[in-house]
Amino acid sequence: MKKIQQSSARTRFSTGSVPRRNEVSDAGNLKIIPLGGLGEVGRNMTIFEIQGKILICDMGFRMPSEDMPGIDYIVPNISYLKGKEKNILGIFFTHGHYDHIGNVPYLLKEIWHPNLEIFASPLTRGIILKRQEDFPQQPKLDINEVKDGYKVKLGPFSVEFFRQNHNIPDNLGLFIETPIGNILHTSDFKFDQNPINDLPTNFQKLRDFGKRKILLLMSDSTGAEEEGHSLSETDIFKNMEEIFRRSQGRIIAATFASLINRVQQIITLSEKYGRYVCLEGYSMKTNVELAKTLGYIKSKRGTLISIKEAQNYPDSKITVLCTGAQGESEAVLMRVVNKEHRFLKLKKGDTAIFSSSVIPGNERTVQVMKDEILRQGVRVFHYKMMDIHAGGHAQQEELKEMIKIMQPKFFFPIHGQYSMLVSHAELAKETGIPEKNIIVVENGNIINLSQKRIFIEKETVPSSYVMVDGLGIGDVGEVVLRDRQMLAKDGMFVIVAVVDKTTGKVRGSPDIISRGFVYLRESKELLRETRKKVIGIVDRAVTSGGAVNWVYIKDEIRNKIGQFLYTKTQRRPIILPVVIEV
Amino acid sequence: MKKIQQSSARTRFSTGSVPRRNEVSDAGNLKIIPLGGLGEVGRNMTIFEIQGKILICDMGFRMPSEDMPGIDYIVPNISYLKGKEKNILGIFFTHGHYDHIGNVPYLLKEIWHPNLEIFASPLTRGIILKRQEDFPQQPKLDINEVKDGYKVKLGPFSVEFFRQNHNIPDNLGLFIETPIGNILHTSDFKFDQNPINDLPTNFQKLRDFGKRKILLLMSDSTGAEEEGHSLSETDIFKNMEEIFRRSQGRIIAATFASLINRVQQIITLSEKYGRYVCLEGYSMKTNVELAKTLGYIKSKRGTLISIKEAQNYPDSKITVLCTGAQGESEAVLMRVVNKEHRFLKLKKGDTAIFSSSVIPGNERTVQVMKDEILRQGVRVFHYKMMDIHAGGHAQQEELKEMIKIMQPKFFFPIHGQYSMLVSHAELAKETGIPEKNIIVVENGNIINLSQKRIFIEKETVPSSYVMVDGLGIGDVGEVVLRDRQMLAKDGMFVIVAVVDKTTGKVRGSPDIISRGFVYLRESKELLRETRKKVIGIVDRAVTSGGAVNWVYIKDEIRNKIGQFLYTKTQRRPIILPVVIEV
Repeated sequence: MKKIQQSSARTRFSTGSVPRRNEVSDAGNLKIIPLGGLGEVGRNMTIFEIQGKILICDMGFRMPSEDMPGIDYIVPNISYLKGKEKNILGIFFTHGHYDHIGNVPYLLKEIWHPNLEIFASPLTRGIILKRQEDFPQQPKLDINEVKDGYKVKLGPFSVEFFRQNHNIPDNLGLFIETPIGNILHTSDFKFDQNPINDLPTNFQKLRDFGKRKILLLMSDSTGAEEEGHSLSETDIFKNMEEIFRRSQGRIIAATFASLINRVQQIITLSEKYGRYVCLEGYSMKTNVELAKTLGYIKSKRGTLISIKEAQNYPDSKITVLCTGAQGESEAVLMRVVNKEHRFLKLKKGDTAIFSSSVIPGNERTVQVMKDEILRQGVRVFHYKMMDIHAGGHAQQEELKEMIKIMQPKFFFPIHGQYSMLVSHAELAKETGIPEKNIIVVENGNIINLSQKRIFIEKETVPSSYVMVDGLGIGDVGEVVLRDRQMLAKDGMFVIVAVVDKTTGKVRGSPDIISRGFVYLRESKELLRETRKKVIGIVDRAVTSGGAVNWVYIKDEIRNKIGQFLYTKTQRRPIILPVVIEV
Repeated sequence: MKKIQQSSARTRFSTGSVPRRNEVSDAGNLKIIPLGGLGEVGRNMTIFEIQGKILICDMGFRMPSEDMPGIDYIVPNISYLKGKEKNILGIFFTHGHYDHIGNVPYLLKEIWHPNLEIFASPLTRGIILKRQEDFPQQPKLDINEVKDGYKVKLGPFSVEFFRQNHNIPDNLGLFIETPIGNILHTSDFKFDQNPINDLPTNFQKLRDFGKRKILLLMSDSTGAEEEGHSLSETDIFKNMEEIFRRSQGRIIAATFASLINRVQQIITLSEKYGRYVCLEGYSMKTNVELAKTLGYIKSKRGTLISIKEAQNYPDSKITVLCTGAQGESEAVLMRVVNKEHRFLKLKKGDTAIFSSSVIPGNERTVQVMKDEILRQGVRVFHYKMMDIHAGGHAQQEELKEMIKIMQPKFFFPIHGQYSMLVSHAELAKETGIPEKNIIVVENGNIINLSQKRIFIEKETVPSSYVMVDGLGIGDVGEVVLRDRQMLAKDGMFVIVAVVDKTTGKVRGSPDIISRGFVYLRESKELLRETRKKVIGIVDRAVTSGGAVNWVYIKDEIRNKIGQFLYTKTQRRPIILPVVIEV
């Protein structure tokens, strides 16, 4: 049984919604402005501003929720930076996951100028540049390569990079020296003393930072609601090995292409157990190719083969490493399951491994896919059954350890749902940080930091969603989304009435076009009645004397037909009257 | 770390998709036909048929998934019963949850006849009859009350009812004697030796059934993927008590109105800690009132007060028991969180308890609601943080125990996703049931059972979804749903062109009506170009000589404008051309 713990209320920490001291902001103070990533998972982007000079950390996107049909991504709102472009000295990317770099092809061009300095580790840089190739008309990016231990001075800031373990290699935390004090930004992280194909956490180095007096610690909250310690990649490796040891037929392993460490594990295990590896899926192929080129994925010559070549080998020699563990409809695994893949069909004896956690909202789709795989005679291993996936984020014990190592004066939990930020704030309190020195912040808040105190300013900056839909960035707003939701719920109903100018009568019978409402062929009586009512509405309006008010007629059709259809069906399609006077 | 276990492939068990023996079905054999509840959670309905006589167990619904916008419920397809109405001797309801009784107001009337016998426990009966009141034009139902130990003889069947613990009282399993042997149907169940306000599991009685030679065991699989033993309601009570003991302000407890046992716990604890209880939400009020009337919920006189009366007492004396723990948009909790509730507003010092698991698909909504509650200064306890909710379903150890007690010849896992059925089948195998005697079945399969063997017939009966949307039952099909999905994704675009019969030219400028596509006011250039293209299409078609083909013109508009809009926006709205010849 789990022990009792509790999420806590805002009122005990400094937050955006308690009355803020309305003091005149000191020009010498540091402002930190999160444009995304707080109260949500994804869309990470933070501004640091002092003496009129600006640094940016990360530019990510997040995936839309179910009530945003048709939306591809949500990106941070950068209007605060309008007019301040020239003050932006640099952009720092912590690692190559899309919730940290995904906004680059959409909005970086808005703030780009030739003197803008961009910094990223080799792998992160490679992923950003590779992705830019998919977006023509982007500025050619010149990205400075930085590594563990590198130090960069930009105006009033000095930034030192340090290695942090995560589930992608080449992840960097930032130690930022500013005129008012030092800030440590953890990036996404976990402590791992036995990682695969990577160096273990360098606690000595972290302790050295701690000794340099941390004014503010900004730490990853994604795992703050999870007890204990995150799993080591070595533990996961052992469990994965057990599956490899037992499997006689093909192994089909699905994961995110961006989980480079997991991809490496599967390649290593395949080599150990004499299996060739087929990469399937565009992002899997390109990511592995890039990571291999840069030396972040190691495989023996000949291990990677094509799915066509695989047909020359017995099943026991084959691993397929593919995308689609979230049940994405276009990804490889779903196409295989639906028997739409050209070369790959599931069969008895295959083993399927889902090595990624299920993103909230995808549970039902993943369950349906898992069921379908079982129906096709395949064994299924997923992360809920055994530890074959780790989230990549520090859990409660690690988070407390990080705070203890850094001994910061002020604490600012970053990255995560509001409940995670609150949990993380509680953990900081447990380690001894005074409540008044902990802030729980919302996107768009302005954090004012001086040596003596931290507070949230009364003013906020725009932080509303900017939605990406196809080629449009920000052109789908509330109204369009609401219409989409209504269309989805009950469909639409267009009524076209041609009215004779001279007689004021509807010519012939009104046309009705409907989608998503009822099956029209089986609703003839309903349509007949509707037409009759439309003719009646027009007749009454026209014969009531005076000038004919076409706007009124349209409103009448919309309201009366809407009521009529609701009475008959209890559905409310969007009604679009078209009245044409001829 | 969890121990290794594995879901298993169909091929080792008898299933619907392995080649079935094509023998002539013996008229003396029993047929069992599940119309719903297999490969899904919800929509439970099973037919038992022998010597031309039919028994039905349960008639439930399930909630739609995200890709079924606008759909209220999915109910079983009962077309197999068309023409056999007179053969239906009886319907047995196991308990009062909507996944077992929800279809009654929709489709029971289709099979109802005056000699149909219906059986349910007092609480189940009460819930069914109460719900019927919301649906006029339903046949007046005469439901026989049955209790633990009652026995009913109907034609070739004899059914004995026995108490099973679950999270609603008055849940009954069925021991069915048939000419070919005995079937035990567990209903939803868990073993609980310390339930709240209910009798503990009667193992002696179960063992007695086991001694009576069970030919077939049909057992609840909902918990078959969960290790160990389900929590006892007494353990949950202890954790809940801890929250009550600590809370100073109001307690706002959200759960399902149908979780009568949880509701009782909260009332009992409130009384113990000197709190009055306000019931909020229509279903909460009606369910508690009904359960109280029938004696299934006990509260002291004066405990239940209205939310208005609550204002006369200090916060420490108030518990609010409400609906909405799933983040349902119309339920009480969401209205309170959104500050739309007339009397109830959250405030600092309140404690919110989410005492129900999150239904897959609702995770994101619940997270957003939880965050919003935290923002309003309220402490939050949810079932992931501590054990304040139990699912009501037996887990792996209990399921194995049930099989061991019954020692059935054949085993048929019921209720649950396909992966749960497969896991349950594995458990049965572990307890010693031979693989060939275990069947994993799909909805619509016909199970042929004799004393010697069990197999799935080659033929199937219709089991496709019947969707309820407003007043329509089954009138929304694939086409309408697909249109809704398309409308949701990229909206719609109506083009109205009035063409002069004599000149063949478009009169004036074509009208454009669009919803859910782009914000029209900011897309004037796009609309201007679209209009110009429409005029061009009509002109070309009309002047190309010969009779004007209006169907061709509409197709041209649909295709060409569709391509044009996609090039400009990468969106594909549904395009509806209206061409009017005047």
